[in-house]
Amino acid sequence: MTVKVAVVGASGYAGCELFRLLAGHPKVKLIGAYDIRNAGKPVSEVHPNLRGIVDLKITEPDYAGMGRRADVILAATPHKVAMKFVPKLLGEKAKIIDLSADYRFDDVKVYESYYVKHESPEVKGVFGLPELYRAKIRRARLVANPGCFPTAAILSLAPLVKRRLIDLDHIVIDAKTGTSGAGAAPSEVTHHPVAGANIRAYAATTHRHSPEIDQELSKLAGRKVKAHFTPHLIPIVRGILSTAHVFLRKPMTQKALLRIYREFYAREPFVRVLEELPQVNFVVGSNYCDIGLEPDPQSNRLVVVAAIDNLIKGASGQAIQNMNLMLGFDELEGLEALALRP
Amino acid sequence: MTVKVAVVGASGYAGCELFRLLAGHPKVKLIGAYDIRNAGKPVSEVHPNLRGIVDLKITEPDYAGMGRRADVILAATPHKVAMKFVPKLLGEKAKIIDLSADYRFDDVKVYESYYVKHESPEVKGVFGLPELYRAKIRRARLVANPGCFPTAAILSLAPLVKRRLIDLDHIVIDAKTGTSGAGAAPSEVTHHPVAGANIRAYAATTHRHSPEIDQELSKLAGRKVKAHFTPHLIPIVRGILSTAHVFLRKPMTQKALLRIYREFYAREPFVRVLEELPQVNFVVGSNYCDIGLEPDPQSNRLVVVAAIDNLIKGASGQAIQNMNLMLGFDELEGLEALALRP
Amino acid sequence: MTVKVAVVGASGYAGCELFRLLAGHPKVKLIGAYDIRNAGKPVSEVHPNLRGIVDLKITEPDYAGMGRRADVILAATPHKVAMKFVPKLLGEKAKIIDLSADYRFDDVKVYESYYVKHESPEVKGVFGLPELYRAKIRRARLVANPGCFPTAAILSLAPLVKRRLIDLDHIVIDAKTGTSGAGAAPSEVTHHPVAGANIRAYAATTHRHSPEIDQELSKLAGRKVKAHFTPHLIPIVRGILSTAHVFLRKPMTQKALLRIYREFYAREPFVRVLEELPQVNFVVGSNYCDIGLEPDPQSNRLVVVAAIDNLIKGASGQAIQNMNLMLGFDELEGLEALALRP
Amino acid sequence: MTVKVAVVGASGYAGCELFRLLAGHPKVKLIGAYDIRNAGKPVSEVHPNLRGIVDLKITEPDYAGMGRRADVILAATPHKVAMKFVPKLLGEKAKIIDLSADYRFDDVKVYESYYVKHESPEVKGVFGLPELYRAKIRRARLVANPGCFPTAAILSLAPLVKRRLIDLDHIVIDAKTGTSGAGAAPSEVTHHPVAGANIRAYAATTHRHSPEIDQELSKLAGRKVKAHFTPHLIPIVRGILSTAHVFLRKPMTQKALLRIYREFYAREPFVRVLEELPQVNFVVGSNYCDIGLEPDPQSNRLVVVAAIDNLIKGASGQAIQNMNLMLGFDELEGLEALALRP
Repeated sequence: MTVKVAVVGASGYAGCELFRLLAGHPKVKLIGAYDIRNAGKPVSEVHPNLRGIVDLKITEPDYAGMGRRADVILAATPHKVAMKFVPKLLGEKAKIIDLSADYRFDDVKVYESYYVKHESPEVKGVFGLPELYRAKIRRARLVANPGCFPTAAILSLAPLVKRRLIDLDHIVIDAKTGTSGAGAAPSEVTHHPVAGANIRAYAATTHRHSPEIDQELSKLAGRKVKAHFTPHLIPIVRGILSTAHVFLRKPMTQKALLRIYREFYAREPFVRVLEELPQVNFVVGSNYCDIGLEPDPQSNRLVVVAAIDNLIKGASGQAIQNMNLMLGFDELEGLEALALRP
Repeated sequence: MTVKVAVVGASGYAGCELFRLLAGHPKVKLIGAYDIRNAGKPVSEVHPNLRGIVDLKITEPDYAGMGRRADVILAATPHKVAMKFVPKLLGEKAKIIDLSADYRFDDVKVYESYYVKHESPEVKGVFGLPELYRAKIRRARLVANPGCFPTAAILSLAPLVKRRLIDLDHIVIDAKTGTSGAGAAPSEVTHHPVAGANIRAYAATTHRHSPEIDQELSKLAGRKVKAHFTPHLIPIVRGILSTAHVFLRKPMTQKALLRIYREFYAREPFVRVLEELPQVNFVVGSNYCDIGLEPDPQSNRLVVVAAIDNLIKGASGQAIQNMNLMLGFDELEGLEALALRP
Repeated sequence: MTVKVAVVGASGYAGCELFRLLAGHPKVKLIGAYDIRNAGKPVSEVHPNLRGIVDLKITEPDYAGMGRRADVILAATPHKVAMKFVPKLLGEKAKIIDLSADYRFDDVKVYESYYVKHESPEVKGVFGLPELYRAKIRRARLVANPGCFPTAAILSLAPLVKRRLIDLDHIVIDAKTGTSGAGAAPSEVTHHPVAGANIRAYAATTHRHSPEIDQELSKLAGRKVKAHFTPHLIPIVRGILSTAHVFLRKPMTQKALLRIYREFYAREPFVRVLEELPQVNFVVGSNYCDIGLEPDPQSNRLVVVAAIDNLIKGASGQAIQNMNLMLGFDELEGLEALALRP
Repeated sequence: MTVKVAVVGASGYAGCELFRLLAGHPKVKLIGAYDIRNAGKPVSEVHPNLRGIVDLKITEPDYAGMGRRADVILAATPHKVAMKFVPKLLGEKAKIIDLSADYRFDDVKVYESYYVKHESPEVKGVFGLPELYRAKIRRARLVANPGCFPTAAILSLAPLVKRRLIDLDHIVIDAKTGTSGAGAAPSEVTHHPVAGANIRAYAATTHRHSPEIDQELSKLAGRKVKAHFTPHLIPIVRGILSTAHVFLRKPMTQKALLRIYREFYAREPFVRVLEELPQVNFVVGSNYCDIGLEPDPQSNRLVVVAAIDNLIKGASGQAIQNMNLMLGFDELEGLEALALRP
């Protein structure tokens, strides 16, 4: 059985990564690569790593009938684009996975306070974190693929929050990301001479992924949670290391905590709970989220570290994982690559 | 059909990469991971990217019977190790691919002038560059997998040398490599504070890969060729960019030259001839060798650039490619991953 | 007026940086470069950036009379070395600045729980952070130069802690350092193939700089403070970005907070309080500590970021600053270089 | 004695570096920072490393009277800008150093074939390489500061070419540069996700610095020389390593060659001839050009490697060196900083 997949947003890094992963997926036929930018060029001219493999031409998106021609539509467009075309497609055959923020929020007002006015607030997606919402994802017609930082942060804290083991008022999440998270558009911030031997915090208290983390931790906790999130830009290309500093309500050993994490993620194919703290190059190139933790021997602080590839588990890999679930495929299909280390 | 594969030299980077690639190979069962270092530890403790996938324990190599238990032995040991154990195994069932330099040289005196005294000079391997020796590799019992620099350099020049299109006395090969080429043993040269924002030439006129390049170019030319090879260490982890500066015997256009390269590599699954000059991140993570060229409009110089992942096409990927050939498998089996870009 | 300076510990990075800075100091004559390693070699053979400028030979340390020959002794030896020779020298003319941890702690038991048994617990140094202890440093015979992380962390928090503006029980300090902080000895952790495209936390709850931060914050607060400190290794060579996440006891604007910082550091030549958050390459190559802050608009969290060059303000530059104070020189002498950006 | 210096082109990297170096120059008063971009902003807002030190405001260039107000004008504008305003200023008091290509060429037709139509072809500058033209620079009113690659390449080959020791028809110069050479304007090529773990050749046979190298080598040789030059982009921020592959006309030892280089550069304060091959971090942060060489033991090839900081000896440092010469200052004034290593 082969399904027909269309990718909207062919020029960006999430798009590139979708093509790369789909090319190795045994049950997929790529039928369309859409974008306004680069229309007319072959995918592999824009993304030369794909040369000889993904040579389909990019065309301007023609939404009329796209939902009939395709079984799955993967939208890797910037926020505010999907909200325009998704409503048109929802009545048709295709299942949709949107990698932007447009359908991630339960409360459209939260979206609007961080992004823009929503144009299809009535449409609801399933938050595409399989570790929390697998059953719903299987039945979904529209999945809202999570942001990269939220993926790492939520997975690193879900077992603790769910069980109310920590002080919910003092959750600090200090994340470090490679530069590919900034996308394919050059800017001063990611100009190599500026970024190449530098570290900076950015959007230190106002990052758009913050409300996404809060939404999911709040649902896990059963009460409103405001996590304290700050991302940093690091001179690597791929990878996120998310370090959570939390405070245990009562003392627990590393062993006991690992047991809880292992139970929580016992059936998860893409979460590895480690006895050491993970490093970015345990996972870059793979769909894994590696998690480790260390309680402070001198206080009630607990450090929980999660590592992901921001473009795979943090974006396109997770989208494929969601696609596999929505189509009833083996969840690992096309996602078995291991990290490149060194 | 599944073949049993043993890896000797489990602790190094070529070993790690063999495990990673073998884990994704549908026709392989890994039956042994051997090394003196790290004996007793699981492979995935030494190489944490493999955790959950390659959890076999490393054991000290026991060569007695190894060639009966395994169908293929991949030796990723430093030079001078294989020459000791390979002769014992040759009479047995297993086919052997040696990633070290021990069996790469037609003339054992060349080996001995760059390495050490050879202990099994009577044993001969087939030079494992499929693009030149595919037929012989298919029939070989012992393949000597080429060095990383020679792979890139020879592939970049073979069509020109074979056809005698260039001045064979003025072949300059200026190569740039990531640090993983130095192997897993820490040293001052690869200490991050020294190497992390640095460029250096090393073994500028005396590198051990030099005679390997000369041997193969000489055979292609049908006369003795001494190429002028200098490698440089660059602060990336993976990848080689090999820039050849050669002098055309008579003027030729880029188009005509590309036609020759395309013909030469017409049936090669892992050589891509490009209209632009390749970059390292066109290929890192894949088994491709990308090649491009540019004739100097003001002189008879021709620049030919080749890019490979030094650990894949330059080592373990090429070993798997050779294994596929030796076993009659599809040559691409287990090697279809595309480069990560960005 | 020229003073005679001897450097013990000539082979390491702090030693190298001392030579580099002393070479540009108009009032200093370098009279000795001591080390067990590399004895017999010129300084500039070990540190080739100094070639032609610092060509003194390294000799084995001869402590007898060193304190008479030199006016100042700068000890850039690993912890546990200074504690052996400093007591012998204290009765002599030379003033001593020790860059190791040996004399940083008021309570020798704290030292011993993080390092080793102390061999000269009766000797006390002045904690060499000029911004807090300038007057004492001027009069000191022995200055204990602070660690790199404590320099950044303490300076980033001193105004808040001194004035009790924050919850002292929930101070999280998440620091990121370049690899030169690990010193000149190669290891697996700083091997370029491992570290070059990686991020990791290390000693996440047990780092030796933690008690140093706690000691100073406690003195500033007038009560015991346990900060929650975690360092991360980042693939740059130089620089520390220290991000403090703290909780304001009552709401304050950025403007009001900046005013407090500006007052606190009003007369400091090497602390710059910025309206934006500092980046590592604002300071690398200079003796500055740049500080910026951002209160969270949605909670009582405050993010304070400090950036330093770990080898200058975090080690050798601060040692020169202390030397200038001890000798009555202009504090900026030899330290006026600005950061290299880009 | 203090001279008044104006900088035109305040926003770029060469401008930033001029400010940084001038700030440490004891005989200079900066009287103007000019640019169209960023007019109205303080220099230190654009270049935050300079904060607290260079807080002059950038203003739009007002060329009328600039040559009377200033003693020296440093022009760090892109090519094609200086050719417009330099002629207006030449009759006035100020001496001018132009860091662009506009006045580097003896033959304006060469300039025009690589750049644009020249608007003041009658104006001639002195080529600002002090090692070759010191006497002329001292007397010059207009110095054309060399390009970064030519500085390294010419210095690495001058002694050989001058003495006709090499085959002038087979000079290959394979250069590697950090990304700051591309300037301050972001582009896809220097976007960190693309450039950060990559190596590429660019303008492989057509780079604009090529004719500049040829012009100077030709003058040294006393005949037309066409060197074969190819630059590569490397993921470091600063530094050039220029590797020349040349062919000796008769065999010479390393020792004999070093003696020739040492004689040639005997009185040069900023050229260091080394017994080993230089590395980029021997010089980054300094005005040095380090040179080393290695004859191939198996052929007549000679490898000569030069390392410079592209923004210092390759641009702004050399401009200050030229300024010192033009004003009769000590040539080292303001240029004594040593490289940061590590």
